[in-house]
Amino acid sequence: MTFTRVAVVGAGLIGGSLALRLHRLGADVVDVVVLDPDEQTRDLAGAAGLRSADLGPGRADLADRDLVVLAGPLTTLAATMVQVAAAAPSAVLVDVGSVKEPLARAAAQAGLAARYVGAHPMWGRETSGFAAASSDLMLGVTWAVARPAPDAVTAAEAVVRWLVTAYDARVVVLDADEHDRSVALVSHAPHVLAHLLLEALESGTAGPAAHLAAGSFRDATRVAGTHAERTRAMLGDNAEALGAVLDDLTDRLAAYRAALADPDPAVLGRRLRAVSDGAPTVRAPQLAWSPCPDLGALLRGGPATLIRAGADGLEQAPA
Amino acid sequence: MTFTRVAVVGAGLIGGSLALRLHRLGADVVDVVVLDPDEQTRDLAGAAGLRSADLGPGRADLADRDLVVLAGPLTTLAATMVQVAAAAPSAVLVDVGSVKEPLARAAAQAGLAARYVGAHPMWGRETSGFAAASSDLMLGVTWAVARPAPDAVTAAEAVVRWLVTAYDARVVVLDADEHDRSVALVSHAPHVLAHLLLEALESGTAGPAAHLAAGSFRDATRVAGTHAERTRAMLGDNAEALGAVLDDLTDRLAAYRAALADPDPAVLGRRLRAVSDGAPTVRAPQLAWSPCPDLGALLRGGPATLIRAGADGLEQAPA
Repeated sequence: MTFTRVAVVGAGLIGGSLALRLHRLGADVVDVVVLDPDEQTRDLAGAAGLRSADLGPGRADLADRDLVVLAGPLTTLAATMVQVAAAAPSAVLVDVGSVKEPLARAAAQAGLAARYVGAHPMWGRETSGFAAASSDLMLGVTWAVARPAPDAVTAAEAVVRWLVTAYDARVVVLDADEHDRSVALVSHAPHVLAHLLLEALESGTAGPAAHLAAGSFRDATRVAGTHAERTRAMLGDNAEALGAVLDDLTDRLAAYRAALADPDPAVLGRRLRAVSDGAPTVRAPQLAWSPCPDLGALLRGGPATLIRAGADGLEQAPA
Repeated sequence: MTFTRVAVVGAGLIGGSLALRLHRLGADVVDVVVLDPDEQTRDLAGAAGLRSADLGPGRADLADRDLVVLAGPLTTLAATMVQVAAAAPSAVLVDVGSVKEPLARAAAQAGLAARYVGAHPMWGRETSGFAAASSDLMLGVTWAVARPAPDAVTAAEAVVRWLVTAYDARVVVLDADEHDRSVALVSHAPHVLAHLLLEALESGTAGPAAHLAAGSFRDATRVAGTHAERTRAMLGDNAEALGAVLDDLTDRLAAYRAALADPDPAVLGRRLRAVSDGAPTVRAPQLAWSPCPDLGALLRGGPATLIRAGADGLEQAPA
């Protein structure tokens, strides 16, 4: 199954970039339409050559779609999915939100589990909106794909192939709750820590510290101080998993605090060195890729599965 | 006073870059010698055109110096300063370590206060050693300069002018303890938080989270997982100020944890928005620069002072 008639609902930074990439592949490869409630966004999309419409009147444009990408704000995804599903009766529905369990549950409740696939590009920017979108922005990005419901394996297979071919994606397949726990650590907790730091700096506003903030501070707070509402929705939607991660980080912070106060400097030294020793393993995992003979079987079972395009087609790596 | 005969003691990333910049200014502007206990470092420095010697036999090279830059490891600075001071009886002594109070105290105890100036470039890299040094690396960097002892104002004036002219530096003058509190927040605490995150990821080694770590995680942990001993010395030397900052961050983390658990999403939203609202003030302070008629007076009194090269010489900004 190859998707040839795609709708992207919500043409912000991510949706817009996805749509522009499809558009660039050419109308003979894929026909793409963009639906967005914002008139300026539609105008920008139109100026970039994309066909676009408002979601209400645009429902007619959905009737023949074989794939609908839901790329609007997190808080609107569940309602939009149900609305779109009715207008696009034969389309696979993919969302690109940063939390996966709530929408999977909503899909099941709405009887859409067989054609719903949850996906999440591990990518972000401080910018937002279609004006910041570009056809090249999301090439080569790692995508998380939530392990599909048993009757959605065919749809998920198609989505994985589409991501790998159209976006040169590396795909990580994992359970929705495992995804949400993982991103709580690698994405949402860094947002919280960035806010802590920036908030502390602001609490002494105009003090000298602000004039001394250099690379390490800028990097550590890059994701803080912008798009408060987008961040709130992301953190709030993953509150349970994120809460557990923050509890763990609180314990670790207390341990560092104690190590710092320890009269024996070796206590802190050992802790820092253990992190250094383990860093290569998690920073650049060494994977043994092998051909992937049965994508469906891979999606159905086992722990986290990594998929990428290899010389002879799809390849997989052990978890 | 202009420095024309400079020694750099410790030719790692920072010391090496400082020396290479001076070397590039030309022998008619400044004569520079590098002292380093490591033979390979001396060979590399020699290959780059620098005169170099071991610290022991090299003491003769110090006799005529008007400036000695102490750029070795933090833990060695106090002993090296005393050793160098005896061999360079008329030199101003500048250290570039990341914590300022301990060495200022050591200088006072050794009777060197009148010619000691504490400085600290707000700059770092994950790399280290002379091999990573370059003459351009530290141009335009913000330097903190600790407010000098009253009888060291003349020396500090010369150091500030030297930093501004030779390195295009922007200089922030502040009390040593104020410096240490500031860098605890903008540099050392980010190192601790980066270690927490990386440690948490490593605790589930080879789990799927590592495969999903993208930009925000890489940025947040860039300074973790390398140079454990260098980090330990930096954190440990500033343990008191850093401890207070970590206590404050612990309280803030608990507040975020509570906001996340609050059934009213507006609680978390308000907190995040307050950070966004305050971000521009601390990220890009708006400064009104004016000519600096009396650098000595500026160094002697008042709160944090910013100095830069302007069209007509040095300029200052209100704290």
